[in-house]
Amino acid sequence: MTFNMDITETDGEARTGVINTVRGEIRTPAFMPVGTAATVKAMKPETVRETGADILLGNTYHLMLRPTAERIAKLGGLHQFMNWDRPILTDSGGFQVMSLAQLRKITEEGVSFQSHIDGSKHMLSPERSMEIQRLLGSNIVMAFDECTPYPATEKETEESMLLSMRWAKRSYDAFHNGSDHAKDNALFGIVQGGVFENLRAQSAAALKEIDFHGYAIGGLAVGEGQDVMFEVLDFTMPHMPHDKPRYLMGVGKPDDIVGAVERGIDMFDCVMPSRSGRTGQAFTRRGTLNMKNARHTDDPRPMDSECNCSACQSYSRAYISHLIRSGEILGPMLLTEHNLTYYQDLMAGLRGAISQKKLSDFVEKFHETRALGDIEPID
Amino acid sequence: MTFNMDITETDGEARTGVINTVRGEIRTPAFMPVGTAATVKAMKPETVRETGADILLGNTYHLMLRPTAERIAKLGGLHQFMNWDRPILTDSGGFQVMSLAQLRKITEEGVSFQSHIDGSKHMLSPERSMEIQRLLGSNIVMAFDECTPYPATEKETEESMLLSMRWAKRSYDAFHNGSDHAKDNALFGIVQGGVFENLRAQSAAALKEIDFHGYAIGGLAVGEGQDVMFEVLDFTMPHMPHDKPRYLMGVGKPDDIVGAVERGIDMFDCVMPSRSGRTGQAFTRRGTLNMKNARHTDDPRPMDSECNCSACQSYSRAYISHLIRSGEILGPMLLTEHNLTYYQDLMAGLRGAISQKKLSDFVEKFHETRALGDIEPID
Repeated sequence: MTFNMDITETDGEARTGVINTVRGEIRTPAFMPVGTAATVKAMKPETVRETGADILLGNTYHLMLRPTAERIAKLGGLHQFMNWDRPILTDSGGFQVMSLAQLRKITEEGVSFQSHIDGSKHMLSPERSMEIQRLLGSNIVMAFDECTPYPATEKETEESMLLSMRWAKRSYDAFHNGSDHAKDNALFGIVQGGVFENLRAQSAAALKEIDFHGYAIGGLAVGEGQDVMFEVLDFTMPHMPHDKPRYLMGVGKPDDIVGAVERGIDMFDCVMPSRSGRTGQAFTRRGTLNMKNARHTDDPRPMDSECNCSACQSYSRAYISHLIRSGEILGPMLLTEHNLTYYQDLMAGLRGAISQKKLSDFVEKFHETRALGDIEPID
Repeated sequence: MTFNMDITETDGEARTGVINTVRGEIRTPAFMPVGTAATVKAMKPETVRETGADILLGNTYHLMLRPTAERIAKLGGLHQFMNWDRPILTDSGGFQVMSLAQLRKITEEGVSFQSHIDGSKHMLSPERSMEIQRLLGSNIVMAFDECTPYPATEKETEESMLLSMRWAKRSYDAFHNGSDHAKDNALFGIVQGGVFENLRAQSAAALKEIDFHGYAIGGLAVGEGQDVMFEVLDFTMPHMPHDKPRYLMGVGKPDDIVGAVERGIDMFDCVMPSRSGRTGQAFTRRGTLNMKNARHTDDPRPMDSECNCSACQSYSRAYISHLIRSGEILGPMLLTEHNLTYYQDLMAGLRGAISQKKLSDFVEKFHETRALGDIEPID
């Protein structure tokens, strides 16, 4: 088994290091761009790599429906299919089957549902999710869980969490079924329990008892707000194993990531930089820009003067604004590249600051620079 | 004036050589990808260059409406705006104002019309077209002409052609108005006259009398079919100056280009490789592929095994098919890159064959290979 984590430095609760996988190193804290349908939307994989990404996330729910996991397996696995030879983490399908699929029915066995694409009937269970993620050739497999609705009562949250813990054990058993895939790749458990400290602690304890290669925190970034999310992290992190990767699923905005890194999180994924890029939003060191705004149409400056991405090196705000207004595909291409570069630069900055034990200085400057806001357009 | 053409070799009527411009060399016969709205759709300019393109075409009509020529001029010109430092040819707007604009009114003065984007009122005339192309910083400016409707009677065609010749003289006078732009860049006249030999001859003579840096053939590829187009070329080319570039506007399919090169054409432009790429059509040495077709969904082979583009080097037909079916932006990106590479490879093959005086062998093999059709999908 090649999977392990080396923590090279800590600063308060924050840590930096390297996760070693059969497909290469993941520098932590790490941000994973989302490649839902076997592509990071509007990006070639070599460009994704150039932004600084070490690992991508693939979505079990989307891929099982189209083109199907069996087809991808026949074509050599997800890495070969999408031309990305570095690590891939796949989610379990549990979150998206609840948010996208139709006519869902949850039983102890799993979730039966109809495809949002063509209405075809499917089943996801811990065993089927493990099978799909193995067919894809995932390097970090996520246990199948139920995404607890938000808001939910403590009773509802507890029942949901306990179901996820039973599914976690079944995921573990199915993953370690003797296949070669399990020898070289990792399985992560997912701590649930909503906003309830006792349930989070109970969930973490149950997962540690099973013993996973890494531990995720699920059920956050579902509408609870940053204050609540940080509060949940504050009381949950002490229950997370220290020597294993800790992954905060589906997070988040830049300041969410910074706060979570301060609290000891190692891994993140979020569609925000790519999705909002396609609609004209640019993340910069001085906050977000809406490139549809008329004030950019004559502005010769780059979106972010400190950014080294090709969008900022070679194109003006005026040009990007023109592309977005004209509905040109190059607009989403350049904005996605910029936003993913911004996110990876942020992660590199966090890693460097932790290495030098200067994280608090970095975080202070991060917030100060954002608070300045975008400088005024030139005349 | 740096603009000139060196013809280095001929083979029958075909010629190969180099057009020298202030922005660098154009190897001929040349295919110019179309960058309508200051972008070759779904392509970064560096990728367009990697396909082998020496020159792009920009559209006066689109750019005058959005973002406007005046705005582009303030931002440093079209080259800087779109990050393409090599030659750019701009059309005059004459063709697209007839095919896209609303409420057109043609007078001796020019064409008044309303924008297809927002209904705003505009005027294009020889003088305004020259002004716009100068503001854009075009290296090859096209004279403003009327696109003769097809079909048209000889009388209608003659009247239209004569109007275009009067506009050609006004274009010439407006281009050579003493601006620095005219010192370093070229103006091409456009031979009109529809399918009528006497009118084509008369038009070519009128343009030669004015004396342009190059000569285009307009009014073809408008529905007349390849046989008629080649017939028009056969009787028009003897009237075209030999020592100046000859540009067949808006052409075309690969076999159109091959036949036109055999007849002595040096330059081409067409939206076909980029537009059809966005809808899933791939040009290959063995004919066209519809990547939406179900037979590709399990096919691990590249679209064209002889193609060196990144789409063919790194991705299977199965993957491209998946992207197109899923509506992923990477599908148009890869198909456009492939199709433009195919077109540029074809031009390089034609240039090499003419250099070796083996054009007829090349053309025979071109048609033979296409006639084979795509090989059967593997099991």
